[in-house]
Parts: sequence; structure tokens; C-alpha cells
Amino acid sequence: MNLIPVILAGGSGTRLWPLSREGYPKQLLNLQGSNTLLQDTLSRLDGFRYESKTESATFAAPIVACQEDMRFLVLEQLSALGGQQQRLILEPEAKNTAPALTCVAIDCHERHSDPIMLVMPADHAISDSAAFQSALHDAIDAAAQGSVVTFGIPPQGPETGYGYIRRGTPATDIGKSAFNVAGFYEKPDAASAQEYLDSGEYYWNAGIFMLRASAWLQALERFKPEILSNCQNAVANGKLDGAFFRLNAADFAESPADSIDYAVMEHLADNSKALVVIPVEMGWSDVGSWPALMKLGNEDADGNVIQGDVLAEDTRNSLLISPDRLLATLGIEDLIVVSTPDALLIAHKDASQDVRKIVDRL
Amino acid sequence: MNLIPVILAGGSGTRLWPLSREGYPKQLLNLQGSNTLLQDTLSRLDGFRYESKTESATFAAPIVACQEDMRFLVLEQLSALGGQQQRLILEPEAKNTAPALTCVAIDCHERHSDPIMLVMPADHAISDSAAFQSALHDAIDAAAQGSVVTFGIPPQGPETGYGYIRRGTPATDIGKSAFNVAGFYEKPDAASAQEYLDSGEYYWNAGIFMLRASAWLQALERFKPEILSNCQNAVANGKLDGAFFRLNAADFAESPADSIDYAVMEHLADNSKALVVIPVEMGWSDVGSWPALMKLGNEDADGNVIQGDVLAEDTRNSLLISPDRLLATLGIEDLIVVSTPDALLIAHKDASQDVRKIVDRL
Repeated sequence: MNLIPVILAGGSGTRLWPLSREGYPKQLLNLQGSNTLLQDTLSRLDGFRYESKTESATFAAPIVACQEDMRFLVLEQLSALGGQQQRLILEPEAKNTAPALTCVAIDCHERHSDPIMLVMPADHAISDSAAFQSALHDAIDAAAQGSVVTFGIPPQGPETGYGYIRRGTPATDIGKSAFNVAGFYEKPDAASAQEYLDSGEYYWNAGIFMLRASAWLQALERFKPEILSNCQNAVANGKLDGAFFRLNAADFAESPADSIDYAVMEHLADNSKALVVIPVEMGWSDVGSWPALMKLGNEDADGNVIQGDVLAEDTRNSLLISPDRLLATLGIEDLIVVSTPDALLIAHKDASQDVRKIVDRL
Repeated sequence: MNLIPVILAGGSGTRLWPLSREGYPKQLLNLQGSNTLLQDTLSRLDGFRYESKTESATFAAPIVACQEDMRFLVLEQLSALGGQQQRLILEPEAKNTAPALTCVAIDCHERHSDPIMLVMPADHAISDSAAFQSALHDAIDAAAQGSVVTFGIPPQGPETGYGYIRRGTPATDIGKSAFNVAGFYEKPDAASAQEYLDSGEYYWNAGIFMLRASAWLQALERFKPEILSNCQNAVANGKLDGAFFRLNAADFAESPADSIDYAVMEHLADNSKALVVIPVEMGWSDVGSWPALMKLGNEDADGNVIQGDVLAEDTRNSLLISPDRLLATLGIEDLIVVSTPDALLIAHKDASQDVRKIVDRL
């Protein structure tokens, strides 16, 4: 059994501006401790071992899909963790996640014997790695039998910023804690989000998947053959350059852009064993906003989360990040303050989703 | 008639931290436009000419008292205005204003024939220079007759942060708009400040004086002879070095430290012609706090006063100073934000007087 971590690190969000930038996205930032989100994504698999009556396996070296212009940063961060030889699939342009995963699956399938891929976004946080690892056992059982496995996060509130997965009937024959999937739901309005929460049948879609390479490729052949064929060409005509595998840009450009959810998952959600969800409570966050990042930090007695050289007087419930110079605060509350060498953000917590407005104006 | 501007530039306040620092005090900062407060202090005399039936006079070159370690900054800023030869009296240590003015008066008296000195703090703002110049005519008339003249600012509110001057009987024989002085009052409590305001008899003490050098020296001989004698030695044993006159440090060290008000003015306030006050409404501010500075600026439609590269979204009634990097604000109000290369202040307006707490902790 081949287990391959697949890390999708192509994102370029700016929701954590001014820390995250187009050329320096969230996954490459050290937001909390000594590691970046990308490094945490790989490190949380450390020590994992799958054991069944017939087999035992650990994760092989990861495959990382990322953009060309981030390749050295990504390689440097992965290399800093030690471990085995890296393989970076370089996306010639941004095409969302489905083409990236397709190229990785083709590459995996060629080099290994239909491995089981654990597909993970590079820019999420999971505080309880043990819970995640524990859920992986059932997921591997299910994926080994050909199912596509998603991980569902029990919602903490009526969030309108996430997609939801509705569980169907139990699928204990496939994986002890697994359910068939009754449906995928995009970001809901507030009323729907409350209904989802109250029903107890919905989970946040964390965008983490466990599946055989062949399962992905077969689903793609069925639902999005144009993505499959162009990605096959992009890999066939790609070039290896040390740790980097460069997809053929002309072929890749021909592929439609699409997300994993839209291209495949929504079509598989027919309450059959083709797609199952495994619920897992693991302190997951997409770190998609400053308040979300704040929730991951350690609050002091005044409710502040502080990074850097900060003097806080009469200051409450604020996120204060100033690694590069002294920040002094006096008589403030509920603020997000982020200082970088060339830009400074000061936002009320309730307004911090509007960072996009600032980025758009720049 | 010799008219000499005397600028007291020895202050080292930190109430505008992080812009003002021990080694870079408020008077040397360009807080508003193209000039520093020190430069504005001198420039507001431009074009002034005193005319009476018998004489006509303009201001001679200024004498500036400042600390040794600020001498080059002060000289550079004065020289940038063009004008005549500068003379800087260097204070070997901080002794408050009375010894500084005493040394200047001795130096003036030796070099000119008992000149009339216009004594001005270097770190105040006056928006209406014409009103100030207009008041100077009466002040010169009074000072020429031996009176000490103070300028009284009609209070704009029950301020507890200023000293007050209570007017006595009119002294129109001395100066058309002058009053004798009934008393000097230090910073009052809130109830007293309200009484002062309601009475209409009190003015803010702007710390600006017009007086003959001999009037100061005679008053000092009467009330503080120890300051006078030690300052006489400090000047006698001082050394000229180009534009700089270095007071003798050992002699100066022997002088008691005291303010002009405590050492002399309070003793002269006996409702006689020895001390008169000339009321003048001239947009005066001591620029003693961030909100005070904000009042001097041009508010935009949202009530913000902005300097530098600032993107303000849904931001109200805030002072935003960021000359060195982009500042983006979102959903904030009533904040003071001051960005410098090595320190950043974010304070609620109501708390900004507590900047001292920050400076004390540094």
C-alpha cells in the first residue's frame, strides 16, 4: 500500500493582507509558531502508521503542487523539515484545484502502483493532529476500497463562509466512522447555515480528501474528460528539473479551470459508497480572516493575542502583530493591527473581512 | 529702539511620542506644513514693523536658547529661513526657562542698549499671525515704559492643562488693550477651570512675554538673586564659537532651576503696571497632545486628519499619520495613529494623554 501526501499549495489569497501578498500567500507564512502553514500541513502526519490485519504503511514523501514563482520558497520550507526527497509539480498558471490534483494523480499513478493520496490544502490549521491521524485510519480503509473520502468538520456555529457536506446513511462497511454523502452545499445564507447547524447532519467541508489516484482519474473521465486529457498531455510533455516537475504550459492552458468540489465531488454525492464523509473534530480552521487567525492564538488576560514587540496599555480583545518595530497601544479594543515593513493595517474586528476592499484599491 | 526675538527652544517633551523624542523634541518637528514649530515661531514675525509718533523699528536677528545636543538641528532650521546671523545660547543642562532667559537677557543687554525682548516658546502654534503682530504694537508701547507684558489667550473651554492669568484693572495708559494682572493661576481643577471660563476675566497663559532686558534682570535681582548671579558668571565665563555661545557649565550648574512664571511673574501680579496682560485671540495652541495637534489640521469630510500614505475605509474622526509606509484603516473611529520607522502608536483619543505611561515604560 502506497500512501502519498498531496499538498495543494497553489493559492494566492490576500485575505490576510498585509502579511499575505500575491507573491507571498498565506501558506508560506509563519502565523503562529516556528512553522509555516505549509510546513504544519506536512508535519501533522509525523509518526503516523497505518496498521490492518494484512498490511502496515507510513506516508511516503509528499508531492506538492504550487505556482512556478513560489517554487524556491516552497522547496526551502519543505527542505527545512528534513525528510525525504521533495517533488514539486509546478502549475504554469492558476487553474483552481481540479487540474492541479489531476496532474498530481497522473504523476503518482505513473510512479507508484495506484497509490492512496491524502489531498490537503496547504493553508489550513489543525490544532489536534492526533484526532486527524486517528481519522486517517478509517479513511484509508475506505479509500483502499475505491471510495473517495472527505473529512467533515462538525460546525462550531452558523458560518456562512464555508461549504457544507450533508451526511447520508452510515457506511460502516466502508469505514467504521464513515457516512455516505447526501449532498454538497456551497456557502449558504445565514438562515440556511442556522438550519444546517441545528439539524446536526451537516459538516464543514475542509477540502481534505483521501482517495486512490485511479478513483480520481476515473471520476474525472466521467465528469470532466477535458480536464483529464489536457492534464495527461501536460504531464506527458512536462520536464523534470531536480525537485521540480514543470507541466507543459501550452497543454495545461487548454484545461478548463475548476475546483475539486465542482468538477467531481458534487457529482459523486449520491448517497453511495462512491463518496463518503468521515466526521472529525480536530480544531480545524481555514485561517481565512484575521479574526480566524486570532482564534488560533493564545489570548492574554485582557483577551489580546500579541506577536512581536508590543506595549499594550488598557487594550482589550485585539490582535496585535508587529514583528518589526515597537507597537504601543492605549485605550483600544476589538482591533486588528498588523504591521509589516511596507504596510500597516488597522481594522475593527467586525470590518476585517473588508480587507479585500483595501487590496482591490491598491 | 532695539527689538529682539528670543526663542526658548530648550524643551524636551515627549507628549507627541513617537514623533517627538528626547533627542528630537516637538519644536524641531514639521507637524503640519513645510516648516517646523521652531521655524514658524520666527517666521510669524515676518513683515512686522513698529511705528509710533517718534520711532520706527523692526525685529533684529533672533537669539535662541537651546540645549547643546540640539544645536546643529536648531541652527540648520533657522538658517533654512534665510535672514540674518544667528545666535544660539547653549544651555549646558536643563534648568527650566528662568535661567535660560536670564542668560539671554544678560547677553542682550551687553550687546544692545537695553533691548525689548519678545520671549516665545519654540513649540507652540499660532494660526493667526496677523492678530499676533497686531497685539505686538501695544505690547511694545508697554514694554518700552518698563512693564512686563504677557499675552492672554481667551479660553476656548474649561481646560485643566493650562495656567491662567486673571486680568485686573485696565491699563490703557500703558498699552491700549492692556490690563493690569490680578493673579497667575497654575493648572486648575475642572470646577475652577469652569469658573475661570464663566467669569470672562481669565486668560490662558501662552508663555509669551514682551519686556526690556533690564526689567527682567531687575525683577530677578529682587525675587531670585541666586539665579541672576550664577547666570552672570555663566555668561561672563562663556565662550563664543561661531553662531554658538556656550555658557560656562560649572557656573550654570550653580543656578537654581525655575520657570519664568514661578521665578518672577507670580510675584509681579499685584495689579500694578509692573505686569500687564494683553488679550489676543490668535488661534494659539501649545500642541501639547495628539488631539491638540489634530485640531490644527484640516479635517476631511469624515472628520479625519491625514498625513502621508493612508487608505481610510469607513474611518471617522481619527488622526492618521504615516509618512513612511502605507497605512490602511477599516471601520475605526476616534483613534490616534502615528507611524514612525521604529515605533507605532495607536491610541484612543480619550487615552492619548497617557502617552507618558508608554514613554515611562520604555
